Amino acid sequence: MGERADGFTLDEIVSRFGGELIGDGRLRILQVATLENAGPADFAFLANQKYRMRLKSSRAGAVVLSSANAPDCPLPCIVSDNPYAYYARVAQLLNPPRQESPGIHPSAVVETSLAPGVSVGAGTFIGKDVKIGEGSAIGSGCVIGEGVSLGPQTCLYGNVTIYPGCTIGARAIIHSGAVIGADGFGIARETDGSWTKIPQIGRVIIGDDVEIGANTAIDRGALDDTVIEDGVKLDNQIQIGHNVRVGAHTAMAGCVGIAGSARIGRRCTIGGGAIVLGHLTVADDVNISAATLVTKSISQAGSYTGAMPFETHREWLRNAAQMRHLDEMAKKMRELETRLAQLEKKT
Amino acid sequence: MGERADGFTLDEIVSRFGGELIGDGRLRILQVATLENAGPADFAFLANQKYRMRLKSSRAGAVVLSSANAPDCPLPCIVSDNPYAYYARVAQLLNPPRQESPGIHPSAVVETSLAPGVSVGAGTFIGKDVKIGEGSAIGSGCVIGEGVSLGPQTCLYGNVTIYPGCTIGARAIIHSGAVIGADGFGIARETDGSWTKIPQIGRVIIGDDVEIGANTAIDRGALDDTVIEDGVKLDNQIQIGHNVRVGAHTAMAGCVGIAGSARIGRRCTIGGGAIVLGHLTVADDVNISAATLVTKSISQAGSYTGAMPFETHREWLRNAAQMRHLDEMAKKMRELETRLAQLEKKT
Amino acid sequence: MGERADGFTLDEIVSRFGGELIGDGRLRILQVATLENAGPADFAFLANQKYRMRLKSSRAGAVVLSSANAPDCPLPCIVSDNPYAYYARVAQLLNPPRQESPGIHPSAVVETSLAPGVSVGAGTFIGKDVKIGEGSAIGSGCVIGEGVSLGPQTCLYGNVTIYPGCTIGARAIIHSGAVIGADGFGIARETDGSWTKIPQIGRVIIGDDVEIGANTAIDRGALDDTVIEDGVKLDNQIQIGHNVRVGAHTAMAGCVGIAGSARIGRRCTIGGGAIVLGHLTVADDVNISAATLVTKSISQAGSYTGAMPFETHREWLRNAAQMRHLDEMAKKMRELETRLAQLEKKT
Repeated sequence: MGERADGFTLDEIVSRFGGELIGDGRLRILQVATLENAGPADFAFLANQKYRMRLKSSRAGAVVLSSANAPDCPLPCIVSDNPYAYYARVAQLLNPPRQESPGIHPSAVVETSLAPGVSVGAGTFIGKDVKIGEGSAIGSGCVIGEGVSLGPQTCLYGNVTIYPGCTIGARAIIHSGAVIGADGFGIARETDGSWTKIPQIGRVIIGDDVEIGANTAIDRGALDDTVIEDGVKLDNQIQIGHNVRVGAHTAMAGCVGIAGSARIGRRCTIGGGAIVLGHLTVADDVNISAATLVTKSISQAGSYTGAMPFETHREWLRNAAQMRHLDEMAKKMRELETRLAQLEKKT
Repeated sequence: MGERADGFTLDEIVSRFGGELIGDGRLRILQVATLENAGPADFAFLANQKYRMRLKSSRAGAVVLSSANAPDCPLPCIVSDNPYAYYARVAQLLNPPRQESPGIHPSAVVETSLAPGVSVGAGTFIGKDVKIGEGSAIGSGCVIGEGVSLGPQTCLYGNVTIYPGCTIGARAIIHSGAVIGADGFGIARETDGSWTKIPQIGRVIIGDDVEIGANTAIDRGALDDTVIEDGVKLDNQIQIGHNVRVGAHTAMAGCVGIAGSARIGRRCTIGGGAIVLGHLTVADDVNISAATLVTKSISQAGSYTGAMPFETHREWLRNAAQMRHLDEMAKKMRELETRLAQLEKKT
Repeated sequence: MGERADGFTLDEIVSRFGGELIGDGRLRILQVATLENAGPADFAFLANQKYRMRLKSSRAGAVVLSSANAPDCPLPCIVSDNPYAYYARVAQLLNPPRQESPGIHPSAVVETSLAPGVSVGAGTFIGKDVKIGEGSAIGSGCVIGEGVSLGPQTCLYGNVTIYPGCTIGARAIIHSGAVIGADGFGIARETDGSWTKIPQIGRVIIGDDVEIGANTAIDRGALDDTVIEDGVKLDNQIQIGHNVRVGAHTAMAGCVGIAGSARIGRRCTIGGGAIVLGHLTVADDVNISAATLVTKSISQAGSYTGAMPFETHREWLRNAAQMRHLDEMAKKMRELETRLAQLEKKT
């Protein structure tokens, strides 16, 4: 469903989002779909040249694509410099966030006074001195600690936990199972090998337009705060340690771990399962590949990788055995070279 | 414990599950146990030749084993082609799922009308138009969104979250903290480096006999659905991206990540911490080792590995240094070979 | 804030925790802070020589440091053999755990009778026959199964789940989203490739002074118990499989996975994202680096690493290609050596 049950015409779409329309502007679009599955009231996109062939057989009502692909397109189309982003905006237009009806479910426990226009789901607990901006929707089963501040138009799905004192900006989307503000992993080793906990008295400060995936955890700072800047997008199952700073518009895929006090730049992308060690600095515009372990600071923008290639288990057994002999192999090679050079002199 | 307080005789067990009984069939079994810890009313198994020696000292009432091990067994035994699966069936017989008494806890908020014979725990929220099959038990603190459908005999432990519109088949077991149907990680990059969210309008469709571990997350599809086929077994802390399809009877160990739109075949096994990148296809009957990163499609059944061997940190420092010089080393080797061949010609 | 609004004098601190005071003992300390951000009522620490320069510009009221650094210190200081642990104790003194006022929130559902002096948050469910020690605080939205036992002074944050029958010692701290006692991943393969679940009838037994991070999962044993010994510290997003035993005072960073039946020694440290395979034994005092896969038992104390170094993607492409040819490369090298030796004989 969309904002309007009868959707939008291509003319209306172009007048909102720009782009060059080729075809009948009165065509009415109700939903988005893939080129393969779209029907005549659906809007599709072509962002990857690889799928160009699908234009011919698609039954989509209209397509957004780059100017290079427009001549091939048998369907009504909108030409855009960034078809995928254009498609995202149309998808948002047709699928606006679900409006929860404002009000506090009678089973919720709310120890603060909330602005009108906030909705709170069943069984949710909201502590003292919490501030929640207009138009925000808190799902069921959430636990929001004392002194938390949430910006307007924020959406928390069910079973989200936010520890006391954390601050989250406008238009945040936080998925179920996320935990914001748990204690960082601060422990000091005693002489006998046991550990003494260091109280974590910093907070988590999150900017505007941040999305946080399911079961992702962001720890509060030890002394200073953990900071997530505007527009950061975090997928599921991510771990952000204490005192980390993540720069604006950085995106991380699932299962990433960022250890304590690391500073990640702006507009970075971090692939699934990558790990950044603590106290490192990663520059702006760095792309880290999936499953890469970052063990030292990165001062130059660019792409970085450290993954081990996979192969059949049988081949791997043979090659992996040599990995433990690389240093030896390098020494042997230098030795052979010396011996060869001596021989070359002689003959 | 068990279906019957007085357990089952070996005769009853063999008449249910087959196998050849050697020993007194009237012996009564109350519980399962390891060979080491079993007492005279316990049923143990020998599935791994390595533990054969334990037969001699075991005090178990009876053992299930393969025909090769039967001659060595001083205890009553059942001979089976697949002793471990046989043992699993006996363990189930003696430890049937706990029956929750049907009924909705008065503190639950249920906005739909449920079949009799469903049990709903304290503080659980169930939205509108939810269907739950007969004999299902929903734990405490769960959040089940509008339009969700759960098959019969399904068990959700406490604090599970299911987003609107998702469908789960019969006899599912879903552990605490699991999140089914959160938004996939769909974002389109704008020219200025910021991201526009792409609404995720697909669903999660889960077949029959699926088990989902604690804190595992399965994202809803972007446009089409994310699909988990019958008999899939997922351990804890797993991340399944949007539009993934997992084939029937595939099993994944803890901490696995499957990126968006990957298609995993049937009867695969994926080891702990492995990652499969997006848009790849993995054939049926593929075994992926722990901590392996799958970066391209796999079209042949078989075992695949990509893990880095570990060693003492000191040795690793020496060998790892060479990993950044492998290409150089290969070139040097070709050069040495050429020089050597020239020398061989001369002499 | 601390135990006392007016903090503690340096004299009081030294009389509690020892160490040699250099400076005016009447100075009053209200809070801890970093050397950089500390003000005149703050207590800072210098534990790493790298930050020695910061002493000069710090505005801290006092600093704890080693005797080697005392001569350089322009501020009042306390000399200690272990400045970081000393600092941890001062931080605890100034930031004692928040005391929840005892009592059961009216919206909680408690099916057992609790000791006075226990606090239970909103919407929490506590099953039958649960024992909770004096002074424990259970957050909101928790689910605590039948027969669970929690020691005194234990703190569960919101949305924690503990399955029936598990036991947790004194002074535990368990963060939100943690799941203790879900079923282990016990499945037996049938001849047709499908899986039969093996009931998990063991428990989780956790010692005293254990901290468990957000969204960490510890599975119950299959037959025997999963055991976490005293003083273990687990960060967020960790997965502990069934029948694992973790030795006393071992610490694991975020995203670690320990597969079933592994035995981890005492006082070990395991870096973020490391994985230990099942049925292995790791000795006491072993340090495993981040992102390392442990594939065989470790019998000697020491540091072990198996991570792949990262580099620019371009360089990685070249070097990674050779990893699949290491065995070939080693053979070629042996061949060159033989040929060279023959040539050396000739000339």
